Amino acid sequence: MVLVVKLSGRIFDDESLVLKYSQIVKRLSEKVGIVTGGGEVARRYIAAARRGGASNTFQDLLGIYASRLNALLLISLLDNAYPRVPTNIEEFLEAWRRYPVVVAGGFQPGQSTATVAALVAEAVGSPVLLNAANIDAVYSDDPRKNPDAKRIPELTYDEFEKILRSSSLPGGYELMDVWSLSILKRNCITTYVFDGRRPELLEAIAKGENPGSKITC
Amino acid sequence: MVLVVKLSGRIFDDESLVLKYSQIVKRLSEKVGIVTGGGEVARRYIAAARRGGASNTFQDLLGIYASRLNALLLISLLDNAYPRVPTNIEEFLEAWRRYPVVVAGGFQPGQSTATVAALVAEAVGSPVLLNAANIDAVYSDDPRKNPDAKRIPELTYDEFEKILRSSSLPGGYELMDVWSLSILKRNCITTYVFDGRRPELLEAIAKGENPGSKITC
Amino acid sequence: MVLVVKLSGRIFDDESLVLKYSQIVKRLSEKVGIVTGGGEVARRYIAAARRGGASNTFQDLLGIYASRLNALLLISLLDNAYPRVPTNIEEFLEAWRRYPVVVAGGFQPGQSTATVAALVAEAVGSPVLLNAANIDAVYSDDPRKNPDAKRIPELTYDEFEKILRSSSLPGGYELMDVWSLSILKRNCITTYVFDGRRPELLEAIAKGENPGSKITC
Amino acid sequence: MVLVVKLSGRIFDDESLVLKYSQIVKRLSEKVGIVTGGGEVARRYIAAARRGGASNTFQDLLGIYASRLNALLLISLLDNAYPRVPTNIEEFLEAWRRYPVVVAGGFQPGQSTATVAALVAEAVGSPVLLNAANIDAVYSDDPRKNPDAKRIPELTYDEFEKILRSSSLPGGYELMDVWSLSILKRNCITTYVFDGRRPELLEAIAKGENPGSKITC
Amino acid sequence: MVLVVKLSGRIFDDESLVLKYSQIVKRLSEKVGIVTGGGEVARRYIAAARRGGASNTFQDLLGIYASRLNALLLISLLDNAYPRVPTNIEEFLEAWRRYPVVVAGGFQPGQSTATVAALVAEAVGSPVLLNAANIDAVYSDDPRKNPDAKRIPELTYDEFEKILRSSSLPGGYELMDVWSLSILKRNCITTYVFDGRRPELLEAIAKGENPGSKITC
Amino acid sequence: MVLVVKLSGRIFDDESLVLKYSQIVKRLSEKVGIVTGGGEVARRYIAAARRGGASNTFQDLLGIYASRLNALLLISLLDNAYPRVPTNIEEFLEAWRRYPVVVAGGFQPGQSTATVAALVAEAVGSPVLLNAANIDAVYSDDPRKNPDAKRIPELTYDEFEKILRSSSLPGGYELMDVWSLSILKRNCITTYVFDGRRPELLEAIAKGENPGSKITC
Repeated sequence: MVLVVKLSGRIFDDESLVLKYSQIVKRLSEKVGIVTGGGEVARRYIAAARRGGASNTFQDLLGIYASRLNALLLISLLDNAYPRVPTNIEEFLEAWRRYPVVVAGGFQPGQSTATVAALVAEAVGSPVLLNAANIDAVYSDDPRKNPDAKRIPELTYDEFEKILRSSSLPGGYELMDVWSLSILKRNCITTYVFDGRRPELLEAIAKGENPGSKITC
Repeated sequence: MVLVVKLSGRIFDDESLVLKYSQIVKRLSEKVGIVTGGGEVARRYIAAARRGGASNTFQDLLGIYASRLNALLLISLLDNAYPRVPTNIEEFLEAWRRYPVVVAGGFQPGQSTATVAALVAEAVGSPVLLNAANIDAVYSDDPRKNPDAKRIPELTYDEFEKILRSSSLPGGYELMDVWSLSILKRNCITTYVFDGRRPELLEAIAKGENPGSKITC
Repeated sequence: MVLVVKLSGRIFDDESLVLKYSQIVKRLSEKVGIVTGGGEVARRYIAAARRGGASNTFQDLLGIYASRLNALLLISLLDNAYPRVPTNIEEFLEAWRRYPVVVAGGFQPGQSTATVAALVAEAVGSPVLLNAANIDAVYSDDPRKNPDAKRIPELTYDEFEKILRSSSLPGGYELMDVWSLSILKRNCITTYVFDGRRPELLEAIAKGENPGSKITC
Repeated sequence: MVLVVKLSGRIFDDESLVLKYSQIVKRLSEKVGIVTGGGEVARRYIAAARRGGASNTFQDLLGIYASRLNALLLISLLDNAYPRVPTNIEEFLEAWRRYPVVVAGGFQPGQSTATVAALVAEAVGSPVLLNAANIDAVYSDDPRKNPDAKRIPELTYDEFEKILRSSSLPGGYELMDVWSLSILKRNCITTYVFDGRRPELLEAIAKGENPGSKITC
Repeated sequence: MVLVVKLSGRIFDDESLVLKYSQIVKRLSEKVGIVTGGGEVARRYIAAARRGGASNTFQDLLGIYASRLNALLLISLLDNAYPRVPTNIEEFLEAWRRYPVVVAGGFQPGQSTATVAALVAEAVGSPVLLNAANIDAVYSDDPRKNPDAKRIPELTYDEFEKILRSSSLPGGYELMDVWSLSILKRNCITTYVFDGRRPELLEAIAKGENPGSKITC
Repeated sequence: MVLVVKLSGRIFDDESLVLKYSQIVKRLSEKVGIVTGGGEVARRYIAAARRGGASNTFQDLLGIYASRLNALLLISLLDNAYPRVPTNIEEFLEAWRRYPVVVAGGFQPGQSTATVAALVAEAVGSPVLLNAANIDAVYSDDPRKNPDAKRIPELTYDEFEKILRSSSLPGGYELMDVWSLSILKRNCITTYVFDGRRPELLEAIAKGENPGSKITC
């Protein structure tokens, strides 16, 4: 069995969370592909570059470098991971056939790490993508602003796309942008969205539970 | 001055068109970045792979290889182009500072060459993208099916996005998908859509004309 | 046991042949190295480049790119092949120790894919090279022009070299040029020439038959 | 004329300092090689890795990745720098001959960025190394602990080495470890130590002043 | 179990020694990392470059190329070694997880192969480094010049460092320079120094003997 | 104007010859591509590998590594050469457009450095190849064995091929093998064969003289 996990960059702002994720990944019996976001370090460097007049391309590259730093930290805590951070899908695929765990950050400018995770899930033929997010589930609207916002345990990609467009879902774009969504849809990969601050949910999902939201095609 | 040109893959199905484009590029005084599509060869190999059960990742890689073959053909006909086909934006950028002409094909799976062209335009700071397309302009609908379809000489990215969604514009997605559109928009790059079978229009646009459609932010 | 197979580029002009080869390669119990030619796509791009005045180096590179497209198509149809197309013998050798099947196209300008196949056979220590050719066997002369041309089931490299020089053997040079011949000879690798349009002969040879010609040192 | 500058990682903890350095580097008429340290980001990731039981090799790699993030930030703020972060001396040297400014971070585990700066100075034949440090000059002892500590404007590498061994010079090892010292000495490269929080001193030294300490062979 | 072996470059001046080492390495049941020095070839090329006015960087690179030639010779004599010479620690580490034997030469200018061996031992987590040296053990002084020089079977890194500084130990620096010493010390790796002209001692040490000197932290 | 020079590996067995060649290359006003042979070092390592049972592939790789060591020595003595040794024709071509001098050794197993020189001459469009050989000219037979051997100042490739086949021309194969000959012929490149021990002849030929033999198509 094969799992692909997307770890929000914010997880890396809390070192103890990273350690917990590394311990859980070690315990998993599945072959695991992991994609890490950029987090606070990415935001800080991108902001500095923007203020100094750097191009969008370089701003994105700084975010990619930061996400690779996160990927390398996770690799350093695992015993059996590919010891490098792959920088494109072909390198990921080659490492994948040889190592039980492969961890990547961003691949290239103009592309979110959510999209990298979708590309990885597609390339390794994973039926699921586990998205350790900044929210605990998909809601019909921003639960902090709209008291009527409803938590949605199961939905389709088409329904999710409508929510993305119409609502102010916090972290919505980071969760899944249009490009990643189209890749997941074309492969019918099921996405599990769960609270990234609770690493134990990763195991729960691997065992068949759905502690957050489940998006299907 | 700097120009980025997207050449539809279909141009490469007609060898004499490729020769004409190479002659025009040689005459341009601008620094030129070119991105080539995959064309008939891409379609044929992707179809064979799909029938044999290959994954989407490999189908996309075949399209990328075919687009690079097109890029190399164009390079072989120019005197002053970077002699390799760059395979990612960082390599493109490095070559760009050293050569008057750089020609790329696709970069990675799950990404159209339209998006590569947008990324290149962003990275080199080009104010314009010249899209040598399979249609001669943007229309309100498919002109071959709808006699009321109107040719639109000037429009905004938002207007173009609406047309993409609502109509059956032939080659619409190939012209510009959602991801490429968002990159062009975030950089306020002006896109000129023109008939790819008429290479002379490239020079016309470089001189300030608008023989097809002009899309602005 | 180890097998090295050279697939004529023409095989890739017929998609159903490629599918059949992929199925047979999956069934083989041997470790298999495969080298693919360029075929019709190569010929078309080289001709266009030549007409446009491209150098021999670029003409050869176009043939190499086309042969790699063929190699990638075959890879996409196999489950256990090295997922990249190696571009030199060192990369081939490294992949070889890790994957049951490795598929390459051309390596560099001025070198036929027949020579690449010979270099691969030498590098992996293969006792045999199976040449899926455009003819069904070696003949004393062109059987289509000379009614007295004799089919030769077994011959030595020295005898083959004489035929190459003196006759108008169709596809002779493509079958084996002087450089590939000298490599095969210096390693005493046995070459089996067989009709590339009949994929089933690959299995027959693997089982010890000689449906075409056998060339020994 | 040629300059090599070592920027302490701590400079990158203060974004406004980085912007000032970028403006000064743009104004310099010299060809400039720059090596950046890792700073707070490096320290935080290394600490997390150590707590999680990562090897020294991976701890060092995290520091190197962080220093490359700093290098890329500086590159993004310059117009004429090599657009990549070179990862070894050969790549640095190749970029050096083509760009007026090249910026690197760490090269490999077990090696300080002070040593990278010394290797770069040696490789490009620079007569000087400008060390933007965490102290404003070399002292005979830690000035914050020992009121008798004397500021030393000029000294030799041998004298410096003695101070390194005998005193508790703050940031002493970071300033120059034994390996970097031996490289600077074998090439008779003059080192200028100055307060990294004052970017204007870079220009002062380029004009011939010695606002901190000058170490000669 | 894991072993890291440093082979003095002089061993490669005697071809029969190299063959013997290859046979012993084949017999070892441990996973083995090997680092080779440059030897006579390195010295000759470095001397020629120096006389012609080449920089220290290029002199060091010539030594590195020569050491890699030695590494490749050893690789060519083994059946199960990584078929390439890794050029940095990350490549070594990646090869290490896939091959029972990995052989490297130098990594970069300004760095001895003794340091490379220490970095490798650190990276692969080896508890020991076997140093096949130009002397048969550590002595208190040069035994050829000082009749009172004492052979020291066991000592600490601190004691060894004192001898290095105070005595004229022949080949002392080549054995272990300050940088390699600090890496071995920070990881508490035990070094066995033995006579490189006696390959059989490699097996003796692997079995627990100490035929030369043992240096511990 | 453009020159391609092939330096016999034996030249590198005599350090003073290498220095003289470096001085002459510095004085040339032409853009110069140089290919170096392996010489005595190559022969020694290949012999050791063969005795130890290494494959032909590895024997050839050792020769390639040795030829690259020679290339790097020459590079280290020049001011304006590409600072790396290109390992394939694409890398050579890229370096060629940026540096006045590019120096390569061997490219790949099964290919002589004479062939590399021919490929380089073809790729850079050089009208001539200057072959600094182990003999001073082409002879009708071995002049040391046959007193009737005639020195041939001018000949065609076809005539040269006949001599290669029929006679025991010393160093004949090293001078030009069948593959290099076919490349030179298909591009009508004129080859000048001259005594490699007399570097001054390089300048003489550059000025239009023919001190040895001139081979034309």
